[in-house]
Amino acid sequence: MPPSDIDEIRARLAAHPRPAELAERRARIESLGASYSLPPDVLVEPVDAQGVPAEWTSTPAADGARVVLFLHGGGYVSGSLKSHRHMVAQAGREARARTLAIDYRLAPEHPFPAALDDALTGYRFLLASGIAPARIALAGESAGGGLALATALSLREAGLPLPGCLWLSSPWVDLALTGASLESKASVDPLLSRAYLAELASLYLNGADARGPLVSPINADLAGLPPMLIQVGSAETLLDDSVRLAEVAGAADVAVHLEIWPRMIHAWHLFYQDVADGRRSLASAGTFIRSHLDAP
Amino acid sequence: MPPSDIDEIRARLAAHPRPAELAERRARIESLGASYSLPPDVLVEPVDAQGVPAEWTSTPAADGARVVLFLHGGGYVSGSLKSHRHMVAQAGREARARTLAIDYRLAPEHPFPAALDDALTGYRFLLASGIAPARIALAGESAGGGLALATALSLREAGLPLPGCLWLSSPWVDLALTGASLESKASVDPLLSRAYLAELASLYLNGADARGPLVSPINADLAGLPPMLIQVGSAETLLDDSVRLAEVAGAADVAVHLEIWPRMIHAWHLFYQDVADGRRSLASAGTFIRSHLDAP
Repeated sequence: MPPSDIDEIRARLAAHPRPAELAERRARIESLGASYSLPPDVLVEPVDAQGVPAEWTSTPAADGARVVLFLHGGGYVSGSLKSHRHMVAQAGREARARTLAIDYRLAPEHPFPAALDDALTGYRFLLASGIAPARIALAGESAGGGLALATALSLREAGLPLPGCLWLSSPWVDLALTGASLESKASVDPLLSRAYLAELASLYLNGADARGPLVSPINADLAGLPPMLIQVGSAETLLDDSVRLAEVAGAADVAVHLEIWPRMIHAWHLFYQDVADGRRSLASAGTFIRSHLDAP
Repeated sequence: MPPSDIDEIRARLAAHPRPAELAERRARIESLGASYSLPPDVLVEPVDAQGVPAEWTSTPAADGARVVLFLHGGGYVSGSLKSHRHMVAQAGREARARTLAIDYRLAPEHPFPAALDDALTGYRFLLASGIAPARIALAGESAGGGLALATALSLREAGLPLPGCLWLSSPWVDLALTGASLESKASVDPLLSRAYLAELASLYLNGADARGPLVSPINADLAGLPPMLIQVGSAETLLDDSVRLAEVAGAADVAVHLEIWPRMIHAWHLFYQDVADGRRSLASAGTFIRSHLDAP
């Protein structure tokens, strides 16, 4: 098989391995985002979301009444508005919606539940801004996917109105690390080893129970949650997080769409400008979001 | 919650329980199909598919070059062209394709591998008719879903060209009956108990190994299979067959779309004229098939 676009990303990642120091790790993911250009028709507006830094993006076709609330990945310790801006903007384009990305607080400086508190604040900010909950897609990637689920569970517990749908890409939903793919996919995942995930979990949990439903939502009762799209690559140690989430959510009568994308690596959407299946998966997410935010 | 359309189907099924005699069971599923009208724009044409009885359906918008090859459900012992004709025609309408439904031989008169042989003959008939394999969606419901997978595996082993995609609704892919949902969903599934499935498996297997890959394709190496859409209801004892199929196929680098439809019962597509989510699920299958048969 000739080298594919995703193989070229693998080679690039191998040439720039993850640094040991946290500050350098944070800089690395930001420089990855900065290496991608933002199309000229994307409007970016910083906003104070009731005290939490955030930013809007929109493209010309965006319906102002519909919003994708996005929670970035980075293992709860890195990632930012900057690292994911290009991808979030493209997701908004495909969904024909504005996006609101939340710059939630990071561990270890701010462990659980700081990030969850900030995500909830972002959601309340949207409601206070007059956005109808049924017109919100609550979304997240990797750790942000787990955070989006924890946010939805917290909203349900608080009796607040739920979003119209959830979009979770490569979600990390089991901080106790019990999935079989942590081993079976270890040799093909260039980003996430069990040892690295254990380190991230420890920093975020800061002593909290790794099996708790708000950090590991595969252990939660998911009944009543809105329709969810789960997207995962087949070359991920976290593949089983997505499959088990589909299993648990579906068994609880949640509408589930699970997409497994062959040979894609963790968080491949970030590379959409270079990877055709990154573009296709964002288009699929956009279709899902449009159809669910349009529903009566 | 007020009674929904699927609750009315449940009530109808409860009022007409499955008979003990096989001949009456076969008549019951045929009368179910016959109770639904065929829209007047559906053209039905019987055909001899290299010795296997079959029939074409088409609607005015069908592209003659694209075919949904359909294998009906009925636990390998019942079901027919008549029982599923209305639903198959509607699937073809949504896919904008012709359909070829195969009247494969049934157990116990004709146990494994008779049905598989007939399905393969149907596929070869399409190839001999000049249909490009990339323009064929190989599809099946319940036992027919397992049969569709066994057909694809047999094609791969024989070195024959594979279809463009697979569409499996409520597939039965584990005749050894090892799924946890056989118990966890027993109280909400009005159609399939473990005892009934065990009886069906015994009749089809006729002594063959229940774990064999051509009767229980979750035990097969699925590498190389085309993209598959799996649709299942959350009120099915066979829910875990679909989830585990998604897991095994995805891990083998097959493109997987799994849809779990809340509160839907086994083979709910059959009731699409009465059940909105039956219509929606057929529309979703049509979208999937169109996009995969259109691919270059």
